Amino acid sequence: MSESRTKVKKVLPPATALYPLPAVLVSCAGEVEGVRRDNLITLAWTGVACAEPPMVAIAVRPSRFSHGLIARSGEFVVNVPSSGMSRAVDLCGNVSGRRRDKFALAGLTRAPARVVSAPVVAECPLALECRVRHTYRAGSHDLFVGEVVAVQADEDVVDPRDKIDVARLDPLCYGGGVYWRLGSRLGTYGYSRE
Amino acid sequence: MSESRTKVKKVLPPATALYPLPAVLVSCAGEVEGVRRDNLITLAWTGVACAEPPMVAIAVRPSRFSHGLIARSGEFVVNVPSSGMSRAVDLCGNVSGRRRDKFALAGLTRAPARVVSAPVVAECPLALECRVRHTYRAGSHDLFVGEVVAVQADEDVVDPRDKIDVARLDPLCYGGGVYWRLGSRLGTYGYSRE
Repeated sequence: MSESRTKVKKVLPPATALYPLPAVLVSCAGEVEGVRRDNLITLAWTGVACAEPPMVAIAVRPSRFSHGLIARSGEFVVNVPSSGMSRAVDLCGNVSGRRRDKFALAGLTRAPARVVSAPVVAECPLALECRVRHTYRAGSHDLFVGEVVAVQADEDVVDPRDKIDVARLDPLCYGGGVYWRLGSRLGTYGYSRE
Repeated sequence: MSESRTKVKKVLPPATALYPLPAVLVSCAGEVEGVRRDNLITLAWTGVACAEPPMVAIAVRPSRFSHGLIARSGEFVVNVPSSGMSRAVDLCGNVSGRRRDKFALAGLTRAPARVVSAPVVAECPLALECRVRHTYRAGSHDLFVGEVVAVQADEDVVDPRDKIDVARLDPLCYGGGVYWRLGSRLGTYGYSRE
């Protein structure tokens, strides 16, 4: 590591330069002017917030159609796509669902959730159904922190111990404006928790 | 996609099953019984929370030594390691810094931050200096939302437009209890934002 210690650091403007990020499809549903609507939004600004209870956070601009549905229903589903779904994921991140059905546009299928009223994306091998427990108005984005109240996964990405097999899941990564697959596995090491 | 539509979904217990996650080294500093201490903690539970101002969130258990330093100082640094640092990253996630110097133990070097008082990890090609703007006590973990107030990056991971070159950064991914490298780039697609 002595080589890298001598590298010159460049100072850049403050930015959200965190890599890699998970690229997910968030589904949501709610009433708009008395009519039930649902939508999909592609997000990479999502992460884990808590173990007990299990929680994940998503950052959504208030101007997005999905923001109102999530804020009013207090529910969302984080659908984790496989890398083969990158075109559908990209489309859902670049088209508004206010006047169009993004499921139809992207060739995706609604499936029932177990606990929440929002639909699950049938083609995604993994879905986390969430109920909003906290909203932080951060600035350009609201951070919704949701408790995971149910998980659905394709049988072929679940190992015999009911854990997700990440290699078989083949999740979609995001960084630098483009999508990536996961590469080689580096393994765990020998340090035991003290 | 018709094949995947027919797959049987398995219902799993609620869990934080989100993939991939960024594996980062968070550095922090503060006073403990009148003595200045610093520490490193490996986290994968981090994500982007806001664009304007730029914010990232980290989830930390209150029992961790770093939690007290971050809570008291109101500052932390998210150091993004390259994949070659996976052993050092793993060590920092499995040893407590309460009685030991994790920088020395992991062969890592303290470098000065630009804005905050916590040290930067010199070997990490990218560092986001953060000030805590919001803390959400989620349960087993506290979610610290920090505004990014400065970014430092190795010159060789910065492209001519001052953006991070993710392939050269070669960040460390986490999922399913093991570390991964990023794999093939899937590219951007043709959908223009409406």
